[in-house]
Amino acid sequence: MKIVFIQTGGTIDKDYPMIKNGYAFEIAESAVKRILQKANPNFDFEIISVLKKDSLDITENDREKIYAACQKASSDKIIITHGTDTLIETAKKLSAIKNKTIILTGSMKPEKFADSDASFSVGTAIGAINVLSNGVYIAMNGRIYPWNKVERNLETGQFVEK
Amino acid sequence: MKIVFIQTGGTIDKDYPMIKNGYAFEIAESAVKRILQKANPNFDFEIISVLKKDSLDITENDREKIYAACQKASSDKIIITHGTDTLIETAKKLSAIKNKTIILTGSMKPEKFADSDASFSVGTAIGAINVLSNGVYIAMNGRIYPWNKVERNLETGQFVEK
Amino acid sequence: MKIVFIQTGGTIDKDYPMIKNGYAFEIAESAVKRILQKANPNFDFEIISVLKKDSLDITENDREKIYAACQKASSDKIIITHGTDTLIETAKKLSAIKNKTIILTGSMKPEKFADSDASFSVGTAIGAINVLSNGVYIAMNGRIYPWNKVERNLETGQFVEK
Amino acid sequence: MKIVFIQTGGTIDKDYPMIKNGYAFEIAESAVKRILQKANPNFDFEIISVLKKDSLDITENDREKIYAACQKASSDKIIITHGTDTLIETAKKLSAIKNKTIILTGSMKPEKFADSDASFSVGTAIGAINVLSNGVYIAMNGRIYPWNKVERNLETGQFVEK
Repeated sequence: MKIVFIQTGGTIDKDYPMIKNGYAFEIAESAVKRILQKANPNFDFEIISVLKKDSLDITENDREKIYAACQKASSDKIIITHGTDTLIETAKKLSAIKNKTIILTGSMKPEKFADSDASFSVGTAIGAINVLSNGVYIAMNGRIYPWNKVERNLETGQFVEK
Repeated sequence: MKIVFIQTGGTIDKDYPMIKNGYAFEIAESAVKRILQKANPNFDFEIISVLKKDSLDITENDREKIYAACQKASSDKIIITHGTDTLIETAKKLSAIKNKTIILTGSMKPEKFADSDASFSVGTAIGAINVLSNGVYIAMNGRIYPWNKVERNLETGQFVEK
Repeated sequence: MKIVFIQTGGTIDKDYPMIKNGYAFEIAESAVKRILQKANPNFDFEIISVLKKDSLDITENDREKIYAACQKASSDKIIITHGTDTLIETAKKLSAIKNKTIILTGSMKPEKFADSDASFSVGTAIGAINVLSNGVYIAMNGRIYPWNKVERNLETGQFVEK
Repeated sequence: MKIVFIQTGGTIDKDYPMIKNGYAFEIAESAVKRILQKANPNFDFEIISVLKKDSLDITENDREKIYAACQKASSDKIIITHGTDTLIETAKKLSAIKNKTIILTGSMKPEKFADSDASFSVGTAIGAINVLSNGVYIAMNGRIYPWNKVERNLETGQFVEK
């Protein structure tokens, strides 16, 4: 089994600049690298960085780049880490790809936080990609949804069945 | 979706006694509780403690208890956390249960460790249980294996395809 | 021994809002509470929240409030957690207080981060306050400086001897 | 300022072997290295490993080695990390050294644990060594004690004034 991980940015990859004037977080290298180091995985993988953006800033042009990265990926199993605010929009864009299994996931707290849900979320996507057939899915809050069967509850932040 | 989590002990639940003479660890409450607190899951769950044992100490009688707990569980989706040394033996015992989806998982480092793989492993089991049909499976090292298609590499500690 | 801890905000107390639109952090409850829970300290303490501000936003009026809180504190040993950008300005303001031992400290990464220096920094302040006589001091980067013998290296972010 | 850190082992340095049969912890490289990496310290330091033992296993011969390491240390500021069970015995042995500032410290939970007190404890020792004059001290539970003014409460595990 080989999985291609695509970084687009979002909360999961946020870090805190150490020097000064720390008003904002910045998007650092893919959290997947650190998560897999701890996980001792028994599969091949490749991590590709396509974007380092908060998902509210992702443009249509950016989505074209993610789409292209999926098409030329060296495996038909792809996991995309993404900001949660526009995760569903990107999933919709990718739904035109029919011959791959693509799962989008993200986290509510940056992986750098001690109480982050990042390892868990990436774990759910990896567990599901072991057994899912082709299609585009979203892995959030411990659930795996086909991309067009999910919406976000704007009050709780949770992704729920539509 | 409802998942019943069954605690049997093992590395994942090990903690460090704070008072003194700290030669050994102790098996504490189920790590799943803390993992799900961070994960903000969108499913119902119940956590049942059947054993708190290192898996080398699990007896045939203990396996009967785990078997019974699976049979009377309030959901047909069951995730068992277990020490890795005899995970496969317990899976074999449970394989007589045909009408449920049972996944056994564990971790290489206790969940209490900052660099633990516990959240990741439990995540992979939860991701897989969203989509698997009935049967008994093992979720380790980022892979999901039918119970009788897996063995342990005693040098690396990894679970690999048989 | 009794220590009064005064929260003013700053990086040390920053958390990440879980709901959505996570561009910014928020200043949450005092990190000192969580640090002392892990530390099992053998001294009495009280934690007072005076401000929850990034230190660039602290006004002269805010410094008056910190000053007043020090004057009426129930112990002559006081540790103030503070954003690093204007730590020295606040220390200068407090230097008029002659009959107490006041140490200001902070961290480069929020206490919520797995790789935070917050426990370490608060530890250095507590270690020093065990033995220091009256005066106003700054505890940063593993060093204890009298307030008027320290400046910040704006390139490295470190506090260094003046 | 230069500090020499001496590793002797103990809870603070315990890790969990990843391969198998994980009944016990093992003593790994000095936790001080990782603590200082996070702390961005503004002082010179050297870390010397003299022993990697649970402190109940430290012999008179081992204490001679620690004594010798203190005598030939390249700074007169020395911090020793040590198991808590015989911390006071080692301190007594070292009390013959009159021309250095030596602080012994340790932790209740291994530094590898997410809820460890190790960074805090090492921080307290560093904070105190900035200001203490020559002598042998113990830094535990947020307190700094001269070596002969402290005893351990065997029920709570805390170090308290004698």
